[in-house]
Order: sequence, then C-alpha cells, then structure tokens
Amino acid sequence: MTDIDNKPIEGKPIEDRDEERHRAKMAKRKAVQDAEVAAKTIEKGLLIVNTGPGKGKTTAAFGLALRMLGHGKRVGVVQFIKGKWHTGEKDAFAAFGDRVVWHAMGEGFTWETQDLKRDIAAAEAAWAKVLELMADPSISLLVLDELNIALRYDYLDLDKVVGALKARREGLHVVVTGRNAKPALVEAADLVTEMGVTKHHFSAGVKAQQGIEF
Amino acid sequence: MTDIDNKPIEGKPIEDRDEERHRAKMAKRKAVQDAEVAAKTIEKGLLIVNTGPGKGKTTAAFGLALRMLGHGKRVGVVQFIKGKWHTGEKDAFAAFGDRVVWHAMGEGFTWETQDLKRDIAAAEAAWAKVLELMADPSISLLVLDELNIALRYDYLDLDKVVGALKARREGLHVVVTGRNAKPALVEAADLVTEMGVTKHHFSAGVKAQQGIEF
Repeated sequence: MTDIDNKPIEGKPIEDRDEERHRAKMAKRKAVQDAEVAAKTIEKGLLIVNTGPGKGKTTAAFGLALRMLGHGKRVGVVQFIKGKWHTGEKDAFAAFGDRVVWHAMGEGFTWETQDLKRDIAAAEAAWAKVLELMADPSISLLVLDELNIALRYDYLDLDKVVGALKARREGLHVVVTGRNAKPALVEAADLVTEMGVTKHHFSAGVKAQQGIEF
Repeated sequence: MTDIDNKPIEGKPIEDRDEERHRAKMAKRKAVQDAEVAAKTIEKGLLIVNTGPGKGKTTAAFGLALRMLGHGKRVGVVQFIKGKWHTGEKDAFAAFGDRVVWHAMGEGFTWETQDLKRDIAAAEAAWAKVLELMADPSISLLVLDELNIALRYDYLDLDKVVGALKARREGLHVVVTGRNAKPALVEAADLVTEMGVTKHHFSAGVKAQQGIEF
C-alpha cells in the first residue's frame, strides 16, 4: 500500500521528515492558490446577497462596511425594517462621522405597525433614499438591510428594484440582506451566501442579548 | 373552496379589506413573536461558531464586534492566520482606540510560510494571548479569527482549546471563525452558523478587491 502523504523519507530523523512533508504540502497549496489568484482579473462593483435562516446576514454586511471604512471609503446604510430596539451598530458607525450615511425607515414596517399603507409608504421612502445614494459617486458600498423582507411582502416592485440594482454605476458594491431572497435578485447577484442554522441558542431558551442580537 | 387568507370581507371596499387582512396577519405574527421572546429568559456569554465554505464568517464576527463596541464595550481580536494583505478592518477598529485589543499572530501561519515548527510556535503564542484576553474582565467579546484552521492542521490541541472555551468566564461571548469547525467545538457551542456558497464572483473571474475581500 502506498500512501503518498505518509511515505517515509529515508535516512532522516522523524521531525525533519514531518517538516519536509509539511513544506511540500504547503508549497503545493501555495502554487494552487497563486494560480487561482492569477486567473482572476476582473474588477467590478459587486451585487452581494446575504440570505438564509441563519445568523450573520446583517452583521456580515456591517463587517464589510467596516472593512470599506478601513480603506478610507464612504458607505451608505438603508434599513428596511426597524424593530423597537436601539442597535449598537448605528452608534458604533457614528465613530466614522460623515463617512457613514445612515437611513432607517421612519418608524419602519414590522409586525409592530400592522398598517399596510404606512408600511408601503415607508418602504417607498426608503427606496427613494437608495436611489439617491446609488447616484452619489462618493459612496463605495451600500448596505440595503432587510430589503428582502420588503420584497417578500410586495411593498416594493421586484422588477423595479432588481432593474435599478443591475443598472448601478460601475464600481459600486451593494449588499442586500434578509431571508428568502427572491430568485430574480439571486439571478442578478454576483455573490450569494446562504446563512444556515446548525445550532441556535434561542432553542435553548437564551434570550436576545445586548451586543449580540442588537 | 375556502382560502382563509383570501376570504372576502363582506361589505367593505377592496382597499379596506386588504388593510384588515394585513392587520390580522401581522397581529397574529406579533403574538407569536411576543410569546417567543417571553419564553426566553436565560442570559449567558455565548460560544459562537461561524463556519462553512461561504463568505461572511469573519465579516459577521467583526460586525458583531462593532455592535458590541456600539454599546460601549471592549472587544478582543486574535487572528490565527495572516495573509500578506493589509486588511481594512484593522484600520477601521483603530477608531475605537483601546476598546479594541488586536493581536495578529506574528508573521502568522499560512501556505506562505511552509515552516511547520514556526507555524506551531505562532499558533501557541496566539493561544497564550487568547487565554490572557479570556481572563481580562474588561473584554465582553472575543473574536478568534480562523482558529478552526489552526485546529484543522493540529497546530493546537483540540481538547485543550475546547476545554478552555467551555470554561470561559460567565458573560464572555466568544466567536470562532473558519471552515471545517471540529465536531467537538460545534458540540460545545451555543450558536453555530454554516455559511454556504450559493453563487461566487470568483467563479466568474472577478478578483479579490479592496474593501470586499481585504
């Protein structure tokens, strides 16, 4: 039986053999990695969708915003759903002054409002803000938080939204979050990540906590 | 045929019927939501694992750190893998001064070093830093970025690591990131999210870009 990865290297002490095997394995990995990097040459503003039932859709979008801010860029955030909780991320982004443009839909729509007309009007106002920020060349990344929920409830016209996102200016990155991303949006996107729940602390009776859920 | 959700409400104009249906649906949803929230009473420091092949494992961890910072808390970050790229998030966290304690493993281990002994020593030094930060009561959240990679390569002892994480002080939240989380870590965790790839721009030849990948 020949096991390439565990083939003995004759005449060397064990530790040196391990070292040698490791070096060969990592050199191979580096070659693959370098070739993969070299094959990718396109630069473009991405349409990114974070969906699925798991955690991390919004936090990953905000982590990306933070990364962009670290490069000295400006970011925009439009929140399409607004709970009663005050969220920590908004306060944290205040540290970046006018490099973060934040728009949370008035009182927002949720199961809290129970008012269809008000919800639709709020979604449309937020969408108008999105169009304004998409046209602003100083913005490098735009986070459309929970837009998928507004689309799911048909508060906004899907074709209109997807059409505008597809027609975004060159170089603008847009991140859309929320469960149940519409197939037309997935189709138009460059990067779609599905956050899946493997294990959730809510199932063990743990409540939403400051700094974690809000 | 009876369709509950589309049952006509007699003697009212169409718009009012829609409004009424919406209100009833949302009221029901709110009742479910409120009952769920009320049923959860436990508060505890969570062990969170972001794993899977998709994007967002590290960015979601950093988004959570940002949320925590927004509440005036302190966070620690220990990076177990370090590429040649300068990352934007580190510069962004500098805005929070000494409320972020950042430790990137010296030169770090990757397929770039190709030196097993150096990699193990670097992983052990990073782990020593983790133990120090876990013992610091001023830290509310600790991000152990790419710890799963160090565990996968057996640079650190799995039992030792999981044992220490389980024994963390009350109230400390820890987020571990990286592909291929070990089953023992998943078992010990409160919240495990699997980031799955639905669609990736690298497959379309798009390269890693500033503010997105680094």
